[in-house]
Amino acid sequence: MAQVSTPRPTKDVITEALLDITAERGLDQVSVRQVAAAAGVAIGTVQHYFPTKDAMLTAAFTEVVLRIRERVAATVLGPDVRRNLAAVLRELLPLDDHRTAEVRIQVAFAARAATSPALAEMQGVILRDVTDAIATAFTLAGHGTTTAERASVQAQVALATVDGLALHAVSSGDWLDAEAQTAALDHLLDALVRR
Amino acid sequence: MAQVSTPRPTKDVITEALLDITAERGLDQVSVRQVAAAAGVAIGTVQHYFPTKDAMLTAAFTEVVLRIRERVAATVLGPDVRRNLAAVLRELLPLDDHRTAEVRIQVAFAARAATSPALAEMQGVILRDVTDAIATAFTLAGHGTTTAERASVQAQVALATVDGLALHAVSSGDWLDAEAQTAALDHLLDALVRR
Repeated sequence: MAQVSTPRPTKDVITEALLDITAERGLDQVSVRQVAAAAGVAIGTVQHYFPTKDAMLTAAFTEVVLRIRERVAATVLGPDVRRNLAAVLRELLPLDDHRTAEVRIQVAFAARAATSPALAEMQGVILRDVTDAIATAFTLAGHGTTTAERASVQAQVALATVDGLALHAVSSGDWLDAEAQTAALDHLLDALVRR
Repeated sequence: MAQVSTPRPTKDVITEALLDITAERGLDQVSVRQVAAAAGVAIGTVQHYFPTKDAMLTAAFTEVVLRIRERVAATVLGPDVRRNLAAVLRELLPLDDHRTAEVRIQVAFAARAATSPALAEMQGVILRDVTDAIATAFTLAGHGTTTAERASVQAQVALATVDGLALHAVSSGDWLDAEAQTAALDHLLDALVRR
């Protein structure tokens, strides 16, 4: 007997195709035609959901942010705050193929946001949210000795470091492998937390 | 009497126009036509020097790297290694309009390098060079207590942090201003060097 399943919404199918193509070929290679072919829909359908390249990229980026949030929420967190911080920050590094594809999309989005005020606003909101969440973890890790201002700077440094490591890793071939990335993250956390 | 001056080489004039357009409008808005118009040369002349978009971007990136090296070399360095490190790393942050334009080009290059092996190789060579130079400074700052391996990790962390801060600053509107960037850099150096 054939399984009965709910068909996936067209927008999700298109977004998935868009994610694959952007990650593989880079943003400026993404065309409506390619996305339509990969998703198995008409060009007009893609244009209906994503009328501009910025709309396509925003959809891809939003999906990536959602996936990272889900993975972070699924991280099993114990009483060791330093370990929790490391686990969460590692989710932002391109330590496997899947995450490498996500980071490529984040980098493409950031590059576009550098010259697009609308995308920059969205990036600013997300960076603020993530930084606030990380700052809370640094406050806990400080065991009452860390001010809110200090925790916020620590969070900015930590997020900049993982995003910088991710940028270097995906843009330099094999210059910075997974081991080097986690060693750098560990070094940073040792320096920031143990004082 | 009219001044006699050596005319600038055509390639330099084109590169300058290319830098301005890439920084203002982003990489995927850069066309041969626009660069030719801004440089005041024929389209065929631009195509002669830069036959592909990657060639254009590589020229812009190379010029930016050269300018950063010149500024770093011009930094007056004293006996305080911690201060020297801060001065050099600050040259990588988008603390003024001029540096913001440079960082936009670096980000555009990195985004493209994420899906172009040739550009990734170039990025890897430059990252390795810069990291080695910063590692030497950390070795000096360690006063004989730092191993080469440790200094290398410290340099990777420091370079990732400044590039991450630069990426966040140029892609998020006014989320991370110049003051916040330098405060984050100072916090990082305090954590890395004073131990």
